[in-house]
Amino acid sequence: MRTAEAHLQPYRQIMLPALEDTLRAYVQAHIQPAELARMVAYHMGWEGLGAGPQAQGKRVRPLLTLLTAQAAGGDWKEALPAAAAVEFIHNFSLLHDDIQDGSRLRRGRPTVWHLWGIAQAINAGDALFALAFRVLDALPSDQSPAWPEGPTALLAAACLNLTRGQYLDLAYEGRADLDENAYWSMIEGKTAALLETAVALGAYAAGLDADTAQPYREFGRALGLAFQVWDDYLGIWGDPNRTGKSVASDLVARKNSLPVLYGLTQRDSAFAQRWRRGPIHEDEAPALAERLAETGARAYTRQQAEQWTARARAALAAAPVRDAQAHAALQALADALLHRDT
Amino acid sequence: MRTAEAHLQPYRQIMLPALEDTLRAYVQAHIQPAELARMVAYHMGWEGLGAGPQAQGKRVRPLLTLLTAQAAGGDWKEALPAAAAVEFIHNFSLLHDDIQDGSRLRRGRPTVWHLWGIAQAINAGDALFALAFRVLDALPSDQSPAWPEGPTALLAAACLNLTRGQYLDLAYEGRADLDENAYWSMIEGKTAALLETAVALGAYAAGLDADTAQPYREFGRALGLAFQVWDDYLGIWGDPNRTGKSVASDLVARKNSLPVLYGLTQRDSAFAQRWRRGPIHEDEAPALAERLAETGARAYTRQQAEQWTARARAALAAAPVRDAQAHAALQALADALLHRDT
Repeated sequence: MRTAEAHLQPYRQIMLPALEDTLRAYVQAHIQPAELARMVAYHMGWEGLGAGPQAQGKRVRPLLTLLTAQAAGGDWKEALPAAAAVEFIHNFSLLHDDIQDGSRLRRGRPTVWHLWGIAQAINAGDALFALAFRVLDALPSDQSPAWPEGPTALLAAACLNLTRGQYLDLAYEGRADLDENAYWSMIEGKTAALLETAVALGAYAAGLDADTAQPYREFGRALGLAFQVWDDYLGIWGDPNRTGKSVASDLVARKNSLPVLYGLTQRDSAFAQRWRRGPIHEDEAPALAERLAETGARAYTRQQAEQWTARARAALAAAPVRDAQAHAALQALADALLHRDT
Repeated sequence: MRTAEAHLQPYRQIMLPALEDTLRAYVQAHIQPAELARMVAYHMGWEGLGAGPQAQGKRVRPLLTLLTAQAAGGDWKEALPAAAAVEFIHNFSLLHDDIQDGSRLRRGRPTVWHLWGIAQAINAGDALFALAFRVLDALPSDQSPAWPEGPTALLAAACLNLTRGQYLDLAYEGRADLDENAYWSMIEGKTAALLETAVALGAYAAGLDADTAQPYREFGRALGLAFQVWDDYLGIWGDPNRTGKSVASDLVARKNSLPVLYGLTQRDSAFAQRWRRGPIHEDEAPALAERLAETGARAYTRQQAEQWTARARAALAAAPVRDAQAHAALQALADALLHRDT
């Protein structure tokens, strides 16, 4: 871990400030009137109550774009518009997600809809969505005519996959008949598609053709799946002191996460019987997390996370490298994501 | 009018079925799962309760794109992806608008959020948004390298203008201190931007450069402003038998339309005094519409609609024509929009 961080830290230090400047400049240039730009700046973590690095999130997706561009032989600065577009799409989806889930808090701060109302929050999300496509045009064009589709189509396809995943996530609520296929299909859209596209746009900006970029894309996709599975793990067995959430909060939220779907396949288990009886109080969540672990769900979820991590590593190792340092940093970013305990 | 229709009708008959096929094929190809595609197909007027031409709307924006492409020397069929993208954006904005306004009916049918709930409706709108940018890629590229921006940036800029207008519209609700500038700025975003872009994309698809396309764009923008002003006129003085709405329905809805802003500048008028007193019942709306007319608002609104119509005509007359028939049909479409009584 310390070694991984050592590879990554210098890149973070130069890339993140440049990224943040780019994001802010785009919002400033394209979002009108000033009050709407303020809502967006609040959501992005730059302004208002609790603004700061904590509120901005980890900027994982744009870092993937920038590091991939550099590793694949490009200049990461030329990939800034693509990185910004990906981060805007991520934030558009969070903003709408909070409305859809009725979440009042995001990263410890009141959500946009909670502060400005649902109507204005829908519109602020739409503005971020439009902004992503507006700035993607700044990507040097015809860089990679060998791709069957341009950057717009790549990003739009990821967004369509996002809405597919979001449809499924909403439709799954309260259902007790879901199998693992339903889960993989959902997180493929909700999580993996945008990480794959973040990496694809980096490879595109570096001038790789679609075939050569394929291992990078597979890296992004596998990383996305591993990331989500690990998120599911932490949502039940994560250390509350580190995740900042209550113990086994995903059980209380009755989230159809991978461990739960696994546990429910053992219909007579203590876990499955209790789950079917209905709402779970915070007080009983820790004990129920233990019952779930007894079904083998904890070991299975960890094993799935490790399997997808291994695939991500293998794909990254097979990708063409022009800048070995940036490539090592990409590996370090993947490691950091998958060993994170928050 | 009969002459105008005679110019337009043959184009409608060939273009609209091709457009509808294109729209449906795109939804089929790109929206997953089937249930989400069904929600979109319902909103587009193809499926479910009350499906049919009435539910599909007039497809004014894509017709503008196709007719402009043909008039400016292109082949309208090559502009179908751009026309489809514009219509998807229009429908995305209607879908989110209905949530934001709490409207339970659109074109006489239950709205998407009313049938499927707010969370799924937000997502269905997002899917239409993503679809627009996904299909725009099918536009023959590098057609017009002389444009400072590609079709994606043009459409995204229109969407940013839409969200600006929508922000203002929502923020204006219940305010009594608005002047006419506030109104023009709002409808510039909510209505004119997408009509201008519909025409711009047609010119782009025809291979015009940005300068030569300018009169077409000005035509689209002026047409959009005239269209909205006339809509405001009909919302108060339209014939209920033709508009399908109750008499002076915009007064009951307390919409800050152009006639109302004009009437309020005469602070001591019977209209302004009554407006300030609060909610207006349907029964008193016809009489209040008369009071409003007495301020001169009716004549002023009509004059503004005519003035913008004249500007639209003048711009269209100055635009470069390669296909005179299609150009005449474009003029006819503008006339039909501005003499419509629904």
